[in-house]
Amino acid sequence: MNIQNLLLFLMELIGTIAFAASGVMVGIRKNMDLFGVCVLGTVTAVGGGTIRDIVLCQIPSALLEPIYVETSVITALLIFGFLYFKADKNAARFHNSYDRVMQLMDAIGLGIFTAVGVMTGIKQGYTDNTFLLAFLGTVTGVGGGLLRDMMAGNPPYIFVKHIYACASVMGAMSCIFLYRQFGKLPAMIISSMLVFMIRLLAAKYRWNLPRVR
Amino acid sequence: MNIQNLLLFLMELIGTIAFAASGVMVGIRKNMDLFGVCVLGTVTAVGGGTIRDIVLCQIPSALLEPIYVETSVITALLIFGFLYFKADKNAARFHNSYDRVMQLMDAIGLGIFTAVGVMTGIKQGYTDNTFLLAFLGTVTGVGGGLLRDMMAGNPPYIFVKHIYACASVMGAMSCIFLYRQFGKLPAMIISSMLVFMIRLLAAKYRWNLPRVR
Amino acid sequence: MNIQNLLLFLMELIGTIAFAASGVMVGIRKNMDLFGVCVLGTVTAVGGGTIRDIVLCQIPSALLEPIYVETSVITALLIFGFLYFKADKNAARFHNSYDRVMQLMDAIGLGIFTAVGVMTGIKQGYTDNTFLLAFLGTVTGVGGGLLRDMMAGNPPYIFVKHIYACASVMGAMSCIFLYRQFGKLPAMIISSMLVFMIRLLAAKYRWNLPRVR
Repeated sequence: MNIQNLLLFLMELIGTIAFAASGVMVGIRKNMDLFGVCVLGTVTAVGGGTIRDIVLCQIPSALLEPIYVETSVITALLIFGFLYFKADKNAARFHNSYDRVMQLMDAIGLGIFTAVGVMTGIKQGYTDNTFLLAFLGTVTGVGGGLLRDMMAGNPPYIFVKHIYACASVMGAMSCIFLYRQFGKLPAMIISSMLVFMIRLLAAKYRWNLPRVR
Repeated sequence: MNIQNLLLFLMELIGTIAFAASGVMVGIRKNMDLFGVCVLGTVTAVGGGTIRDIVLCQIPSALLEPIYVETSVITALLIFGFLYFKADKNAARFHNSYDRVMQLMDAIGLGIFTAVGVMTGIKQGYTDNTFLLAFLGTVTGVGGGLLRDMMAGNPPYIFVKHIYACASVMGAMSCIFLYRQFGKLPAMIISSMLVFMIRLLAAKYRWNLPRVR
Repeated sequence: MNIQNLLLFLMELIGTIAFAASGVMVGIRKNMDLFGVCVLGTVTAVGGGTIRDIVLCQIPSALLEPIYVETSVITALLIFGFLYFKADKNAARFHNSYDRVMQLMDAIGLGIFTAVGVMTGIKQGYTDNTFLLAFLGTVTGVGGGLLRDMMAGNPPYIFVKHIYACASVMGAMSCIFLYRQFGKLPAMIISSMLVFMIRLLAAKYRWNLPRVR
């Protein structure tokens, strides 16, 4: 494994941990037990990629490379354990910073998985099909969070948060064009950071797309 | 493209526009922003066919032929734009006629996509498997609306509306038998109109299947 | 068909009837009409296996072998008919014993389908991939109930019941190891009964996994 592949693998791990953490937090908020929390964390982390692989008619990579499920479960156990022991002090802190941390974790996962989804499509040989690549990037990015919210009975982030799926589409498009110009590594890093920044700026300055009143 | 294929293509476009419109209306009712409205419209329009293709282990046709997604997005933008500008006047009218228009759009989409689903199965060579063809027709017909309602957090039409999935099953069966007797075009047109009429009559005369009280 | 295959086929039928019954009961509770009740019963019975087959990139076995859908629909019609006629007396009894019967039916289905899911993976040649086999068993076991609860708008059993998915995972693991030691029939019967007993004991003695308060 050369440096480039190592970097890409690290990015995927970070995205997995971030999305798993967001699922774990929703599960704990919803008062789920230890197992439910692990399931929700794992579904959030690997759900987008699983939908993508099913659409591409492949066995989901999460099943063939258990490292991502393992990472999700370990993330869930650590967060759960941290909040369970000394629950009084930590839980209060948890609820105070819930929205902010949730937002951060979700934005990291959204950015990285959008880029990962585009790269999966490129690896399959769809390099010239911009529409399909953009779809794969977006569904990989938003799919996990969508399943998380639907399973927890929450209104999906994708429909209520400022500039959410929109950020993922922009990231996917930028990833496609950067890949064609500069190659894999710059495309993934820059487009992930772009999505991340759009999401945080949108939340901070309350950018909104128009609504019908 | 001969006349017959042109007619079939036009039917699919009409079904796409009708289902997209129903998704757009639900999204606007739920106060979603422009992007959410586009997503919900597109999911409603191509959702049933996507489930069907996934079940048949194929890459969803919506991804290989972008025309249907494009049609959905344009439909969403037009309806949204119409309601957004002069919102005062139009929005009132929108809410007044919501149920009636929604019903109409949904019935058109349900009829056409039921027939399209049956034809997809026939094109794949399952002509003799009545059970599979009926399933493909029904899932293509009701799938988009089911995803629309689940994503929007509404109780699914399929469980609350009079004679809904039932109309789709009857349409699929009639499409199969008409196809075997008279060929593709009559089967699609007659069975689509049958579903459409059953739905409207069921709504008008409040036909109900029995319930346990 | 030798005795062993007959036994396995009977097990599958029992699981199908039990899960279908659980879906039918939820549908009746939610005041769905006859068709909705049939759909929900069928989805519950064949949903887990369908998710499993889609993940394995195969046409769902429920579509190729209609016997399971037929069994589900007949189960739905019988229960519905029983409650519909003499509704006064039976419905009261229905609501009184709802939770207990529901629990029983769900536990039977969960146990049998967990074992069926593991065996499907083994039949496909994944005998040595413990992680994949455990996933297939669990998703086949919990998938139907998850779809049932999501479609009916209930909080999924998997997140709220004591030791639910956990029982399925334990059953899947035991099924894998029993298969490797003693062959198919003992593995399926013992692991199914194990899941069933864990679920009933967990409900009776209110075993709980920890939660963060």
